[in-house]
Amino acid sequence: MSQPDQFPPSDTTKPKLWGGRFAESTDALVEAFTESVSFDRRLWRQDIAGSQAHARMLAKVGVLSAAEAQAIVAGLDAIGAEIAAGSFQWQQTLEDVHMNIEAALTARIGEAGKKLHTGRSRNDQVATDLRLYTRDAIDELAGLIDALQQVLLDLAEREADSVMPGFTHLQIAQPVSFGHHLLAWREMILRDRSRLLDARKRLNLLPLGSAALAGTVYPIDRTYVAQQLGFDGPTENSLDSVSDRDFAIEFCAAASLLMVHLSRWSEELILWSSPMFGFVKLPDRFCTGSSIMPQKKNPDVPELVRGKTGRVIGDLQALLVLMKGQPLAYNRDNQEDKQPLFDAHDTVAACLRVFGAMLPNLQVEREVCRAAASKGFSTATDLADYLVKKGLPFRDAHHAVGSAVAYAVTKACDLADLSLDELRRFSPLVEQDVYERLTLEGSLVKPRDSYNESYYGRPIAVREILNMNAGRNAGAESLRAALK
Amino acid sequence: MSQPDQFPPSDTTKPKLWGGRFAESTDALVEAFTESVSFDRRLWRQDIAGSQAHARMLAKVGVLSAAEAQAIVAGLDAIGAEIAAGSFQWQQTLEDVHMNIEAALTARIGEAGKKLHTGRSRNDQVATDLRLYTRDAIDELAGLIDALQQVLLDLAEREADSVMPGFTHLQIAQPVSFGHHLLAWREMILRDRSRLLDARKRLNLLPLGSAALAGTVYPIDRTYVAQQLGFDGPTENSLDSVSDRDFAIEFCAAASLLMVHLSRWSEELILWSSPMFGFVKLPDRFCTGSSIMPQKKNPDVPELVRGKTGRVIGDLQALLVLMKGQPLAYNRDNQEDKQPLFDAHDTVAACLRVFGAMLPNLQVEREVCRAAASKGFSTATDLADYLVKKGLPFRDAHHAVGSAVAYAVTKACDLADLSLDELRRFSPLVEQDVYERLTLEGSLVKPRDSYNESYYGRPIAVREILNMNAGRNAGAESLRAALK
Amino acid sequence: MSQPDQFPPSDTTKPKLWGGRFAESTDALVEAFTESVSFDRRLWRQDIAGSQAHARMLAKVGVLSAAEAQAIVAGLDAIGAEIAAGSFQWQQTLEDVHMNIEAALTARIGEAGKKLHTGRSRNDQVATDLRLYTRDAIDELAGLIDALQQVLLDLAEREADSVMPGFTHLQIAQPVSFGHHLLAWREMILRDRSRLLDARKRLNLLPLGSAALAGTVYPIDRTYVAQQLGFDGPTENSLDSVSDRDFAIEFCAAASLLMVHLSRWSEELILWSSPMFGFVKLPDRFCTGSSIMPQKKNPDVPELVRGKTGRVIGDLQALLVLMKGQPLAYNRDNQEDKQPLFDAHDTVAACLRVFGAMLPNLQVEREVCRAAASKGFSTATDLADYLVKKGLPFRDAHHAVGSAVAYAVTKACDLADLSLDELRRFSPLVEQDVYERLTLEGSLVKPRDSYNESYYGRPIAVREILNMNAGRNAGAESLRAALK
Amino acid sequence: MSQPDQFPPSDTTKPKLWGGRFAESTDALVEAFTESVSFDRRLWRQDIAGSQAHARMLAKVGVLSAAEAQAIVAGLDAIGAEIAAGSFQWQQTLEDVHMNIEAALTARIGEAGKKLHTGRSRNDQVATDLRLYTRDAIDELAGLIDALQQVLLDLAEREADSVMPGFTHLQIAQPVSFGHHLLAWREMILRDRSRLLDARKRLNLLPLGSAALAGTVYPIDRTYVAQQLGFDGPTENSLDSVSDRDFAIEFCAAASLLMVHLSRWSEELILWSSPMFGFVKLPDRFCTGSSIMPQKKNPDVPELVRGKTGRVIGDLQALLVLMKGQPLAYNRDNQEDKQPLFDAHDTVAACLRVFGAMLPNLQVEREVCRAAASKGFSTATDLADYLVKKGLPFRDAHHAVGSAVAYAVTKACDLADLSLDELRRFSPLVEQDVYERLTLEGSLVKPRDSYNESYYGRPIAVREILNMNAGRNAGAESLRAALK
Repeated sequence: MSQPDQFPPSDTTKPKLWGGRFAESTDALVEAFTESVSFDRRLWRQDIAGSQAHARMLAKVGVLSAAEAQAIVAGLDAIGAEIAAGSFQWQQTLEDVHMNIEAALTARIGEAGKKLHTGRSRNDQVATDLRLYTRDAIDELAGLIDALQQVLLDLAEREADSVMPGFTHLQIAQPVSFGHHLLAWREMILRDRSRLLDARKRLNLLPLGSAALAGTVYPIDRTYVAQQLGFDGPTENSLDSVSDRDFAIEFCAAASLLMVHLSRWSEELILWSSPMFGFVKLPDRFCTGSSIMPQKKNPDVPELVRGKTGRVIGDLQALLVLMKGQPLAYNRDNQEDKQPLFDAHDTVAACLRVFGAMLPNLQVEREVCRAAASKGFSTATDLADYLVKKGLPFRDAHHAVGSAVAYAVTKACDLADLSLDELRRFSPLVEQDVYERLTLEGSLVKPRDSYNESYYGRPIAVREILNMNAGRNAGAESLRAALK
Repeated sequence: MSQPDQFPPSDTTKPKLWGGRFAESTDALVEAFTESVSFDRRLWRQDIAGSQAHARMLAKVGVLSAAEAQAIVAGLDAIGAEIAAGSFQWQQTLEDVHMNIEAALTARIGEAGKKLHTGRSRNDQVATDLRLYTRDAIDELAGLIDALQQVLLDLAEREADSVMPGFTHLQIAQPVSFGHHLLAWREMILRDRSRLLDARKRLNLLPLGSAALAGTVYPIDRTYVAQQLGFDGPTENSLDSVSDRDFAIEFCAAASLLMVHLSRWSEELILWSSPMFGFVKLPDRFCTGSSIMPQKKNPDVPELVRGKTGRVIGDLQALLVLMKGQPLAYNRDNQEDKQPLFDAHDTVAACLRVFGAMLPNLQVEREVCRAAASKGFSTATDLADYLVKKGLPFRDAHHAVGSAVAYAVTKACDLADLSLDELRRFSPLVEQDVYERLTLEGSLVKPRDSYNESYYGRPIAVREILNMNAGRNAGAESLRAALK
Repeated sequence: MSQPDQFPPSDTTKPKLWGGRFAESTDALVEAFTESVSFDRRLWRQDIAGSQAHARMLAKVGVLSAAEAQAIVAGLDAIGAEIAAGSFQWQQTLEDVHMNIEAALTARIGEAGKKLHTGRSRNDQVATDLRLYTRDAIDELAGLIDALQQVLLDLAEREADSVMPGFTHLQIAQPVSFGHHLLAWREMILRDRSRLLDARKRLNLLPLGSAALAGTVYPIDRTYVAQQLGFDGPTENSLDSVSDRDFAIEFCAAASLLMVHLSRWSEELILWSSPMFGFVKLPDRFCTGSSIMPQKKNPDVPELVRGKTGRVIGDLQALLVLMKGQPLAYNRDNQEDKQPLFDAHDTVAACLRVFGAMLPNLQVEREVCRAAASKGFSTATDLADYLVKKGLPFRDAHHAVGSAVAYAVTKACDLADLSLDELRRFSPLVEQDVYERLTLEGSLVKPRDSYNESYYGRPIAVREILNMNAGRNAGAESLRAALK
Repeated sequence: MSQPDQFPPSDTTKPKLWGGRFAESTDALVEAFTESVSFDRRLWRQDIAGSQAHARMLAKVGVLSAAEAQAIVAGLDAIGAEIAAGSFQWQQTLEDVHMNIEAALTARIGEAGKKLHTGRSRNDQVATDLRLYTRDAIDELAGLIDALQQVLLDLAEREADSVMPGFTHLQIAQPVSFGHHLLAWREMILRDRSRLLDARKRLNLLPLGSAALAGTVYPIDRTYVAQQLGFDGPTENSLDSVSDRDFAIEFCAAASLLMVHLSRWSEELILWSSPMFGFVKLPDRFCTGSSIMPQKKNPDVPELVRGKTGRVIGDLQALLVLMKGQPLAYNRDNQEDKQPLFDAHDTVAACLRVFGAMLPNLQVEREVCRAAASKGFSTATDLADYLVKKGLPFRDAHHAVGSAVAYAVTKACDLADLSLDELRRFSPLVEQDVYERLTLEGSLVKPRDSYNESYYGRPIAVREILNMNAGRNAGAESLRAALK
């Protein structure tokens, strides 16, 4: 979504590298419209790595001399150092990152530079660069997810005994452990991680060697190039290789789903930070104030994360629309693949990072949460289960308790405040022991055998128990014991 | 989709303008995550204009002295000059364009600067800035559309006599005038223009005066501010005013539809430039070449325009998702409204501009078009109409001609190549005069009275006739005459 | 999103109306894949009206005899009656609503039926039907919006004196009138209405007469047809007329924005219904219960409305993707234009209707709202304004109050609970009269002249005052007086 | 996108199963608005299977007696048989598929039916049903992809020797084998298949046992239920289990990408079927005609497939918007998850099926393709490679050939038509042997060792060689030999 950067004025007398066939030089407006170096120069590391691997292979198969390959590799290293140092002079007239680097190489090492492009095309070159970039992005995100899920695990353990109301329809449903609630978040990003790694597996093949679309007559060794670049092997089909942008779309789809998850966390953090809930406090340094209302302390970080969800979903949509209906093979439309991919990557990385920094500082207002969990008839389901144990079919128990709740609403009291006589109006099965079940303590019960297996197939570690023993037990003393 | 710009290191000892309530300074990571000045500084002109109008109004109602207002207006002018000259020092710690400018103002003029924010909030300030920006964007696009539709009109007149095959399903359907085809494109952008101007009408109201969400106790004069800024009046409701981003979404929806139109033109230009069609040539300076295939001359401009369609549709989607489910009033999510809006504006403006430059240079290969129009049984409908005029019900005529075409396909010839005897096998109504109707000339007929009214309600100018006399007549001599 | 309906087995021996050219009959799989009558039969009213107007016109210009036209009109009336009664036998082999009705007509009235299609094509026929349908849909939605905004107006008047906390960032910001909050919702749908009517204006032109893409040789009178069907006139360009689906996209864009608005209302209703807020009660008959938790009373209606937002945005995206990159003129892709359009229409209509029924029954818990408005330092801005009136620049006042709030937070009390000495630590300008400004009553002030003009340009009615005097004043006695 | 089906009039005197707490019965409008049985009854098989597994488990752990479980299982079997036979009476008042079946069960078997819902909630019940449904959908699509890729393999083998022009930018680039082009399509759907199976792996966990959101106090055995239903195990977290719809979104994302692929194939089939290309003929029975133009034979199937891409992308967007910002756990919004999922499944299945039926009948016009491959300087890259082999650096060779092409364009001839003298003007390295390289035969060379490894890690089968030896070799005799 950026404006192109400023460039020095184009030297339109300078010929394009592909200019032999052309009678006129490119219109200045067109040059500005079609250039991509303002954003694709971000691929410089991948482009240099790819070119070095290509040059080494050309030497291996005899297309270049060893000296030529060495000159190319060293020249590219020097150019990379310039770029990293910020002293490289990017030129809009040279269109893109590939042509900028190749032109600089030839300027630096002479004839050998002109031979680098033997047996390849920009079409397979950019496909290679982009796969390398996406692979790097996935690795970064997977690392950030790892860190964040660890944060959640720590926080969940810390809040294992904190009781809060579980909500459905934003109505109070049943008491749950705050720690268990946080582990729901962890499940989401563990799936995201798994999804990203599946995408990585699918993209990790080398398209280089497909040339423009039809392969090349040079006796290239694609497997050797793949090995140098850490690919699992070469791709199968040359037309597909230069046309395929599945990996960018799959990345953005996984990123969109991840952002949907973070937007759900954010919604909860915003709700919980509201004085109407008061369940948590975010540290001052993760909040900002109002320019007019001096008392305001706003949960800006989760609000922005929630807002950025739209951005990443927009990136995904941009790419799907981009590719829809394109005939094979490469079309210039595809130049538009980069900015959505970069933006989705940057956005997700920033959101994961800021949540990873903020969450350990989340202060849970345990007394407020506990008090809220006592409201809203949160133990009504326990009363129904009590009646079932006394022999009533579940549907009848459900109906009896519903009627009791309606009665308590008219009296503006909780179920536990009704007398035994009152409760017995709704079912004669109720006895004195019912009151034990109508308290939070009664509702939070012992771990059950039914949760004894982890789907991750790992041996059951202490930390897993909190999650595996899903839900309502997590706050109970027995859980504490289990965690020891 | 840009990366945040580089800023000088934050001076975290410097307090935020809203910092009174806060015990800790903002985390550096959070500051970078929440800042918007890297992209919203683009609103500086609108922000200064809005502040100047606000200051003048505050003086008018007695909240500021005339001298204070004058100092503010002059100070903002000086700051604007600095920004325009590129010498203004933007600071990330000051978060956004509003705080950067206000802080610079106070540094420059002292106490009066601290009074500028009286009776307003950033919430209504940014809503005002964004409406002004969107209004400017619409005015720019409307101007570009005006220019482009004029280009199409000129080109259509130039190609009024050029006959080409009209396609449905990309099959040859009936001959049409090339000029008439181009006027179909013109209709699309005339609707786009109308849509943008409707959006302008709806957005042209002043939200300033709503303050944070609840109005202000100061005796402000909103009508006076509205007049200064060219608004039709003030908005009605303060909570809505600070929460509403309809105008940005409506702009992006109109922009998306416009891009869908340009993508359809682009598709046709790409098809027509392909050697398989060969209908048009794009000038060299609007094309680029291949890094590997020396003969290539690629229609990069329409390909990129087609590709950029996804981007703008993605911007629209980002904004719809952004606003979905937000409770009133302002939430920080809304900071994410700017980049999609800016990007849609930039993209559409660039595409309109480059098409406006390219299309006058479009070279139509008239002979190739005419030859193509003769293929594919393009006059079969004329044969059916001929039979209807001889008294056959349309459905029967359609069936008879369909059978004749099937027969001609087996003979690998055109309908006009069939003998009278052969044609009469399909209907005895066929006579010698049929051959007049089976030529392109016979198919291109005289203007009809039925097209005599323009829906734009304007007097019928010569240039309109080409369009009004829709379609098949446009190539005929009679049209030439009409245009004289 | 529906499955095709069940049809009687196809009689593949029956020829298609367009089958003359074909050697093989359509594959059964293909027939099921390409049929549209399972969903486009919904257009039958529009199709019949269009055909009747076309027949009358053909008679007027002499292509049909008066008797033929009369037979057609009467035959179509009879078919319409059958369809309305549910006794019409739709046939998948006849592909679509147009062919089904035409075939039934010919079966019923003989030869004249075969002449109906003279001078038109399905391409301009379906474009006409769809415009008529969309116009009807807009008229229905505009009516539903009218009713709903009236409901809001009534409710706002009823709750004009109810004080609630206004939120930004879901933090308590300043007290507002509940009625004023509701009028924010009204503004949103008034814009939606305006947007729909602009779309109506743009679509209300007759495409019929464009035939397949190139007009027709028959001496048709398009203006006469337009008049019969209530169109403002005929379209200008034949290729555009059969290719254009802007009206469907513009409708879905307006519908999407409307749903975004309803999703925001829904979010607030869900929050307000939560026991954590407790601001409103929805009547039992607009809620549903839980299958397991007997106490639950869930705000299903606003939740479903919020959820249906995605659906309508999906419809919009479906249409944008559909049209992207299509060359002119008609392509079969366009058959996919109908279901998203129908779905968006149905969804929006149902949501408007159910909200219109539910909102009058909204019970506002005024005491709960008022109590919440007293929390969260909601009058801190008033203290800042108090200091400004005493001569402090706004920025300094803001900082002083921020510090006072931070102090009160540590004491766990409100600003009004601080002693005069304590308050004066933050500014010596504070005097005894400050306490008047720190109450809700002090915060709710008199109407201001600055809101005296309505942007709708209508004379100011009593009901408007509530809205025009934006925000904080709406709860005050003075407003009550004004409303009398 | 369907209208709700018609139901018999609601019997509003009949209580809801959850109605104990409610004073009023549900408003009829609300009932129609909130019901889901009109579309979710499609889940009946999954619902019954899930309930039977649950009942067996309840008996295993002693909550039900063996006789009760047996009665439930048998009763559900009988109900399933009724549904399959179309004789089951669905009732809108019973809201959804779950309540319809449970009510019918209780009506049929009495008290035991009321016990079925013990230890579960609709929240985990519907999550289970949907996962089962999605798993079935994936299995169906994977099977259809298997069949379709086999079709492509057969077709590719048949057309291995057919030479066609490979395009980039829709300009002729280099000659390729038609078979190789088809194998590019195969690569796409092999990735789609892999993506769907990864989604399957992630979803194949049992959410049942999470109850409303907090697990249940009954001693349930989730592993036993998982085994019965073919799940790999139970899910980990109860709040996540009832809130998670990742699997539906991931399915729709994979479906969207698949449709983008099919839209690309479709675009090519439409282009190739156009008389401007004439590369292929689609059989009559996969085409339809025009209602006005008797000669038309339209490629409706690929056009509709291209059009349906928008629909599936819309489904994906609907689901992403649906889930964005929802707090945990279950909200009624989620009822809107079903129709997009069903629609994406139906659409993709129908498109795969119809392509699988059509493609084997694709008739390739080999002579037309070959003639086109000779145009457009398709062997220019070979000339450049020729010069490189003679010692010229690639960039210089590229420039020399570009100039030669420009010269040939002015002479309106091909490179092979230039004399040796003319060619030598551009490089003195050209010799008589150049002409061998300028023919199609010269351009299609022998397989190279560099393609010797398959990324699927399978032993190299004969059929793979066509693909592995990417591109230009595929037409050569050597390939034929290799295939033997």
